[in-house]
Amino acid sequence: MLNFNFHTPTAVYFGKDTHLQVGKIISEYGYNKIMMQYGKQSIKKSGLYDQVIASLKEYNIQVIEMGGVEPNPKLQFVNQAIKVAREQKVQMILAVGGGSVIDSSKFTALGVKYDGNVWDFTCGKAVPQDALPVGCILTHSAAGSEMSNSAVLSDLTISKKKGCGSQFNRCKFAILNPELTYSVSKYQTACGVVDMMTHTMERYFTPQPPVEITDGIAESLLRTIISAGKIAIENPTDYEARATLMWASSLSHNNLTDCGRGGSLIVHQLEHAVSGEFDSVAHGAGLAVLYPAWAKYVYKANPKRFSRFFRNVFGITEQDDMIACEKGIKAMSEYFISLGMPSKLSDLGVPKEKAERLADLCTNGKTRILDSQMKLGFNECKEIFESCY
Amino acid sequence: MLNFNFHTPTAVYFGKDTHLQVGKIISEYGYNKIMMQYGKQSIKKSGLYDQVIASLKEYNIQVIEMGGVEPNPKLQFVNQAIKVAREQKVQMILAVGGGSVIDSSKFTALGVKYDGNVWDFTCGKAVPQDALPVGCILTHSAAGSEMSNSAVLSDLTISKKKGCGSQFNRCKFAILNPELTYSVSKYQTACGVVDMMTHTMERYFTPQPPVEITDGIAESLLRTIISAGKIAIENPTDYEARATLMWASSLSHNNLTDCGRGGSLIVHQLEHAVSGEFDSVAHGAGLAVLYPAWAKYVYKANPKRFSRFFRNVFGITEQDDMIACEKGIKAMSEYFISLGMPSKLSDLGVPKEKAERLADLCTNGKTRILDSQMKLGFNECKEIFESCY
Repeated sequence: MLNFNFHTPTAVYFGKDTHLQVGKIISEYGYNKIMMQYGKQSIKKSGLYDQVIASLKEYNIQVIEMGGVEPNPKLQFVNQAIKVAREQKVQMILAVGGGSVIDSSKFTALGVKYDGNVWDFTCGKAVPQDALPVGCILTHSAAGSEMSNSAVLSDLTISKKKGCGSQFNRCKFAILNPELTYSVSKYQTACGVVDMMTHTMERYFTPQPPVEITDGIAESLLRTIISAGKIAIENPTDYEARATLMWASSLSHNNLTDCGRGGSLIVHQLEHAVSGEFDSVAHGAGLAVLYPAWAKYVYKANPKRFSRFFRNVFGITEQDDMIACEKGIKAMSEYFISLGMPSKLSDLGVPKEKAERLADLCTNGKTRILDSQMKLGFNECKEIFESCY
Repeated sequence: MLNFNFHTPTAVYFGKDTHLQVGKIISEYGYNKIMMQYGKQSIKKSGLYDQVIASLKEYNIQVIEMGGVEPNPKLQFVNQAIKVAREQKVQMILAVGGGSVIDSSKFTALGVKYDGNVWDFTCGKAVPQDALPVGCILTHSAAGSEMSNSAVLSDLTISKKKGCGSQFNRCKFAILNPELTYSVSKYQTACGVVDMMTHTMERYFTPQPPVEITDGIAESLLRTIISAGKIAIENPTDYEARATLMWASSLSHNNLTDCGRGGSLIVHQLEHAVSGEFDSVAHGAGLAVLYPAWAKYVYKANPKRFSRFFRNVFGITEQDDMIACEKGIKAMSEYFISLGMPSKLSDLGVPKEKAERLADLCTNGKTRILDSQMKLGFNECKEIFESCY
């Protein structure tokens, strides 16, 4: 077991009606002027917006609104939010939405306390030293940003989607009411299931030796997600299934599933190239295509690990490791397809001739090697992308 | 799934040599005068004391020492520590030891900020409103106090051992180096295994409906502990086994295993009566006798739940629920015995005629009902105690 630090300070308020406490929670921290970020119209249509505003008003909390966060949050929006947050001297940022809104809020919070361009944090030019506090009311179970130390940002002017990991990215509090996800579409629900599964799977397949305690938790979490995912797609208002997915989303990305063996998030890097280049691609849908493709490309390097995984998570009973892997990859693909996810990049509008460009993006102009189970340079990444047709 | 709050803000530094960072960690919080609590001579014999003092000295941290914390920490010691901590105006308390040292430090930290008697916190007379920060270097995997919100305290003058749960009881940081547990005796290692297992098992058997995501994590954690426990007893310097137990001890009591269904710690209350009355009884050893006895007494009230548990945790393959429960309880007892644990209260020097007194203590003078799976009043508790012979 490798040495590790584990620090998940986010205060979680989980369950029915918890969002109605938001004013009380914020006032207990002593804040009375906040910025509230959200997406487009959905929180207004659902009535959530009115409930949040009413709760904040009850506790005399002044709200500066920044609506309009897009999926794959954009640097340009964040820069504008930073400007407003500084001018208005807000004390914290409340994200009301899914992973994109939370990530936009996290970058805004970092940016307010940083003199340079926040993009610097995504490319190693700077390391966060401070941030405004961020809290969230989650409306989509997927990214795990509510408890994670990470955030992603896109700059469309250079077709790049990049991430930043830092303890300053941990939300101060996260309000998780599963009922708020009842209205999430089947497609987006499925994207969320794939996203949270891959957060745990990517940590499972590190180049490091296995760690039984962490492996067991990861496998158990994945079995639970697989089962709840099916139910939530069939019956969007099944509380237990929605609650399971919401809590699983948090536990899949708060580092619980990498303790003692680290994580590499290789397929996320492949996918970030895709949704960085093709803004219309939903992150989870990209992962649903790329994860089985990656597994198919690399499992021969470690059939023992992959076959254990497929036996314990997908219930494969085959004794032969290689055959178990092949059956497992098929079972995983079929599960994703059963949720309504695509199985090819062409289904997502990504033309095959783009494989070279995508491989170039995720190896940073051919300079970077992605390392997990097998070292992947430009050529290997290109082959994986080409296999997705 | 019930609503729940989850807030585990403790910063964990896990792995080899992490205790050598203690001075650096404390100085980063800005503290330069601390109280250090520890037990008897073992940390001096092992060299840990010298290493900790050297690290603190390197960062110019002044240390007020309070050695001599006893197993089942005592109110009288804590009162003395509170007095010294106030006189010396220490900024935080560093616990170097196992659960008893950490609990003593937690009560000291609460007491410094409270005008009344800290015992008030154990009997509902007062609720913690503030505390000095506590950090720890753990030397025994068992109580889970390093990440938990709880602490126990004994007052021998009234033969009582009682607990207090509060967010103010969460350690600010926990330094977990599994190598520091190599020298823990086989008996104490076994006591620790039982203690951490029961932390998860007690949460598993709540009166609330099952929650699949939490059940799965709990079962996986228990399987891992059962396996690592055996290895650590056979080979005390097996790093992976010691590391597994250490991390499992933290995860078993930081609330991860009660999310969405709460916890009741019924058998802990039975055991606290025993070790409150008989100070020489090790908590884990008492639990090893009482947990199977409790399970035997109550399983018929919920054979579905108990049989699932024994199938998933102890590998019982029996199809009939009632028989599966009986086989499972036997397997659990045999596992504890295989670790060197007692199976009868007489093995612990507790005479059978004390059953009435013990039942009286844990039902608080016959006024309290312990509720999980089956309601236990004075008579039921007495019968459970009497069955342990």
